[in-house]
Amino acid sequence: MSTTMQAVVKAHAAPGIELREVPVPTPGPGEVLVRVQSASVCGTDLHIFNWDPWAQGRIHPPLIPGHEFCGAVADVGRGVTTVKEGDLVSAEMHVACGKCLQCRTGQAHICQHVRILGVDADGAFASYALIPESNIWKLSPTIPHDYASLLDPLGNAVHAVLAGDIAAKMVVVTGCGAIGLFSIAVAKACGAARVFALEVNAHRRSVAAAMGADLALDPAVDNVKEQILETTGGTGVDVLLEMSGHPAAMRLGFALLRTGGRASLLGIPSQPVELDFAKDIIFKGATVQGINGRKMFETWFQMEALLATGKLNLEPVITHRLKLSEFTQAMELLRTGEAIKVILKPE
Amino acid sequence: MSTTMQAVVKAHAAPGIELREVPVPTPGPGEVLVRVQSASVCGTDLHIFNWDPWAQGRIHPPLIPGHEFCGAVADVGRGVTTVKEGDLVSAEMHVACGKCLQCRTGQAHICQHVRILGVDADGAFASYALIPESNIWKLSPTIPHDYASLLDPLGNAVHAVLAGDIAAKMVVVTGCGAIGLFSIAVAKACGAARVFALEVNAHRRSVAAAMGADLALDPAVDNVKEQILETTGGTGVDVLLEMSGHPAAMRLGFALLRTGGRASLLGIPSQPVELDFAKDIIFKGATVQGINGRKMFETWFQMEALLATGKLNLEPVITHRLKLSEFTQAMELLRTGEAIKVILKPE
Amino acid sequence: MSTTMQAVVKAHAAPGIELREVPVPTPGPGEVLVRVQSASVCGTDLHIFNWDPWAQGRIHPPLIPGHEFCGAVADVGRGVTTVKEGDLVSAEMHVACGKCLQCRTGQAHICQHVRILGVDADGAFASYALIPESNIWKLSPTIPHDYASLLDPLGNAVHAVLAGDIAAKMVVVTGCGAIGLFSIAVAKACGAARVFALEVNAHRRSVAAAMGADLALDPAVDNVKEQILETTGGTGVDVLLEMSGHPAAMRLGFALLRTGGRASLLGIPSQPVELDFAKDIIFKGATVQGINGRKMFETWFQMEALLATGKLNLEPVITHRLKLSEFTQAMELLRTGEAIKVILKPE
Amino acid sequence: MSTTMQAVVKAHAAPGIELREVPVPTPGPGEVLVRVQSASVCGTDLHIFNWDPWAQGRIHPPLIPGHEFCGAVADVGRGVTTVKEGDLVSAEMHVACGKCLQCRTGQAHICQHVRILGVDADGAFASYALIPESNIWKLSPTIPHDYASLLDPLGNAVHAVLAGDIAAKMVVVTGCGAIGLFSIAVAKACGAARVFALEVNAHRRSVAAAMGADLALDPAVDNVKEQILETTGGTGVDVLLEMSGHPAAMRLGFALLRTGGRASLLGIPSQPVELDFAKDIIFKGATVQGINGRKMFETWFQMEALLATGKLNLEPVITHRLKLSEFTQAMELLRTGEAIKVILKPE
Repeated sequence: MSTTMQAVVKAHAAPGIELREVPVPTPGPGEVLVRVQSASVCGTDLHIFNWDPWAQGRIHPPLIPGHEFCGAVADVGRGVTTVKEGDLVSAEMHVACGKCLQCRTGQAHICQHVRILGVDADGAFASYALIPESNIWKLSPTIPHDYASLLDPLGNAVHAVLAGDIAAKMVVVTGCGAIGLFSIAVAKACGAARVFALEVNAHRRSVAAAMGADLALDPAVDNVKEQILETTGGTGVDVLLEMSGHPAAMRLGFALLRTGGRASLLGIPSQPVELDFAKDIIFKGATVQGINGRKMFETWFQMEALLATGKLNLEPVITHRLKLSEFTQAMELLRTGEAIKVILKPE
Repeated sequence: MSTTMQAVVKAHAAPGIELREVPVPTPGPGEVLVRVQSASVCGTDLHIFNWDPWAQGRIHPPLIPGHEFCGAVADVGRGVTTVKEGDLVSAEMHVACGKCLQCRTGQAHICQHVRILGVDADGAFASYALIPESNIWKLSPTIPHDYASLLDPLGNAVHAVLAGDIAAKMVVVTGCGAIGLFSIAVAKACGAARVFALEVNAHRRSVAAAMGADLALDPAVDNVKEQILETTGGTGVDVLLEMSGHPAAMRLGFALLRTGGRASLLGIPSQPVELDFAKDIIFKGATVQGINGRKMFETWFQMEALLATGKLNLEPVITHRLKLSEFTQAMELLRTGEAIKVILKPE
Repeated sequence: MSTTMQAVVKAHAAPGIELREVPVPTPGPGEVLVRVQSASVCGTDLHIFNWDPWAQGRIHPPLIPGHEFCGAVADVGRGVTTVKEGDLVSAEMHVACGKCLQCRTGQAHICQHVRILGVDADGAFASYALIPESNIWKLSPTIPHDYASLLDPLGNAVHAVLAGDIAAKMVVVTGCGAIGLFSIAVAKACGAARVFALEVNAHRRSVAAAMGADLALDPAVDNVKEQILETTGGTGVDVLLEMSGHPAAMRLGFALLRTGGRASLLGIPSQPVELDFAKDIIFKGATVQGINGRKMFETWFQMEALLATGKLNLEPVITHRLKLSEFTQAMELLRTGEAIKVILKPE
Repeated sequence: MSTTMQAVVKAHAAPGIELREVPVPTPGPGEVLVRVQSASVCGTDLHIFNWDPWAQGRIHPPLIPGHEFCGAVADVGRGVTTVKEGDLVSAEMHVACGKCLQCRTGQAHICQHVRILGVDADGAFASYALIPESNIWKLSPTIPHDYASLLDPLGNAVHAVLAGDIAAKMVVVTGCGAIGLFSIAVAKACGAARVFALEVNAHRRSVAAAMGADLALDPAVDNVKEQILETTGGTGVDVLLEMSGHPAAMRLGFALLRTGGRASLLGIPSQPVELDFAKDIIFKGATVQGINGRKMFETWFQMEALLATGKLNLEPVITHRLKLSEFTQAMELLRTGEAIKVILKPE
């Protein structure tokens, strides 16, 4: 095994990224070294690349980003018992402290002291990644290889969809980025009655339809409220899955939500949002949930089980497959909105 | 409209049944008269026919049995506003009192004073049936006609399956009568990971496979426990749907249930059952639910929504279609186990 | 029995109110005539009195307002079976349609077509009130008489407090009007670990302490965030009961809420509110509930049971007892904030 | 610090126990050595002492039993960060594997590979006990010292009581051993409407009353069913807390449970139990829960919070305080039923 590896490195507190040759890390006690086979790109990586205000406040270069990946175990540190060399794995990249109230009561996904690999410490855009054993997810051989690098965003979708009843429900998904698109497929696989997708980008609307959306509308053009109310007998949808973080989409989503419905919010608004709490939440008797990360590890078990049924076709979301060394090109594809999900492969 | 109609009548406190010409009932205030198009036969009807101990204790002849049906509204009494002549309808045949604790807290399906049409008062094995407006279910035009007479047992299945999480779960169904078979289809449509069906009757096992069971085993022959534990990595199933009421099947079902699992019991044992509560429930931290009837009317909304997705193929369960006048033949088909679900049509 | 009665009447589409002698209503089928013994005043009544924009859009004079009361059954219409003359009763004044999705699935408290007695039809500020039997609540003799007229707002509090886990929880109540104050007592009676009350009015803070608040702070003066975070070990509160409808209080309440906590919103903001959804709900994995009315009739059973334990001392909230004819004086006491809850008694 | 310590040792596979001087253990990495201040005796310890069939199948001598205790940290192994020498602590003695499905989905209390200190490895009936850091519970200074050794059985009670709604509920507790008695206090502190206690031992019934039971009945003498049905208006209780494990008590408890009620089973029957599942669970639409251990660590947070309110008076349950060297006398007091909870103090 080589002692150095290829890595994408945020080297400086400035826009851009570098491809570097860096030392292969050595697993300490309880750590697992994974040879990365596929890593996929998230909007977060674009923030880091662009060095926007969020990145400036959170990222401490030098950093290897990347928090969506799969690979094979290359080496294990002392005390590791659940995986061995050669096992195919992915990983939950939110490393929880294990000691706060949330961690000790089954809510490690909202740990008060969470550390995210690929954001707060080195991640997976490299030939090898170093992961604590507790965060390793051993892959079932039934999971298609390319899907295995998508478990992080797929898990966001599964977390949101299964955060309440979904079978037999009318559902609207606002925003058809990768997580929104995954949510459509997950909701349909779990018995949703009808899934409406709202998205301004025409290509993404067509992908939404490919993922199983019963109706994909453009809120900038279509009379969304009229069409959805008509389809639901004037009642509105049972479930809002908010995946955009855009104030207008959030308000439209709440307007579509029926009295007594559930709104699961995952898209991150960059600013405070004004909402008519009286009409949209209180009189409506609505339940609103903040959705963050993946439940550890309930969401992972759910994903694996759903993927094993063969009902989740994620292929339409994977728009590009590139080499890791083509990272900058991936950034450009995401920036223009041409790509949805780009999978990178180290050489 | 004729003033008399054909009806199947339990005329005397003795085995057997009669075909009679009886007066067409007149809807009083808040009542709906339905022209029956299809009515299906339940095991309860066989108990009434055979005049077994349960029937002797519950039934007061003369009675028109039948509690699974659909038809068209023929007439409405004063004050009825939600349906009109010609509307296609089915009905919830458990008439709740509306005044007990359970009725006033959203649990009308376990009303303390429930009265069942077809058991405690005249039912649907006739050309016309008289139903309180509150119990009428207006049919969506998307529901296939023959399925519409099956909403009562399908609702039992939906109630059981959706009484807890089902998406991404390993499920075992013990007993493949009509409700057990429906449960398989519902669980699969709602994202169950794998559904195992246990049934001694070979024909019913083949129907179980047709309904989507991943594995249909004969507990009298197959090494059920070994196979299911192996498939679940030694853990056992997440959900037990007990549809047989047989003590041995119940005990086997509990033995297959994983620690922390859910057991939803719908099959009615005719005698007290001996169970190892320590091992099967307490140490296991299991949750056991008694499932009775259909939630009013949440289950009905769920059924309608699931049927509208087109994912529920109920056809394999409908083994026979007869004329209402062939009622005695239907009893014989059920007695021998040749039939699963028989649909009767008044002439 | 006299054929006319004293009534408070909103006679015209303008500020003010009149005391009039009007005919005693006659109960139709399914209706109950109640001789009012006590009626209490709600902020809604002040809106109607003042003829503010909300009232102008909702109220159709002439109207007898009043939706909090108790009394004795004076007469019953045809078909009434659950109460008889002389029975002590109160009533749920939200009359649900019984036919919408919400009503048919156990959510009648958020009926799509609700009609509120005292708002949309004549209410209880009169010697007699006419109530549908389905909405009558027969009083347990264990409930203190004056408390019996407060079941509507007490029910709001019980609904909010018991909308999630409360035992062993850290709780903050923002806004100490009558419902906020009741919430304090209910939370403490149900095992809340500590209850913090936030309120700018000094008198109400002292009443909050009398209701059992462990700490009553003035957000305009005290360093609320520091004190509450310190008391909760830096974690924040488990439960926010938002009873003010004021944007600043809502934002403060969310800032105090711990990651993974529950926010139950009952206070009605008069305008859209700006909130940092990313920080306050999404990253926090919070659950936010809109609380409207009282669950029919689960909340009523809960109230009765809690009052029967003797643990709810509502006395501190009842600041004034007046004659019904002193209605205008009650309005003045509420307007100045001097009164919290005023009980009126018809002569 | 001495290198040897006093310990109660099950030395041989036979009835009886020995007091021995054994080496003080040394904390390895991640381990905490606690100087035991109080340890209390559980029925399990009597099984071990008597060497009954259960003990013969589970216990591997030599073993130091004891799984209820508190003390001060005497030493910590490498890597321990959450406690330091001198800290007052108790501990969860169920050591979960951390790697099975249950452990990875927030159900560590029903870990498939649990190891119990005091049963499967050395426990706390000694001057010192060795505990993994993850299982240590740092005590709030507000918890009375003697109560701190009772957190294990108190936690069983809290787990059972709070496994479903308890506020405003009618509750029956069958069996008034220590956990049953604690359950009474917890249920009352959390707003239970009324708590009925069933127990044949007169002394325990009097303790039940001291713990807050509204009615303590002797099922061998009193007409329990008639009295409880009368008190609940013929409906039955909302919640059954089964703490006896006796078949007759279990059947009586289910007979008292209302339609739609919750049965939480904690008492361990020594044999399979015959129950009328049709009447007692299925038609009743009951929910039955197996309760095992304490939720890690939600139950511990709940306990601490409830104890901090000062509402839990556990004193009546502590019937004896002895020296650790008087262990055999404690066994005799438990055997005769004279003692409920015996607290032992090492010298």
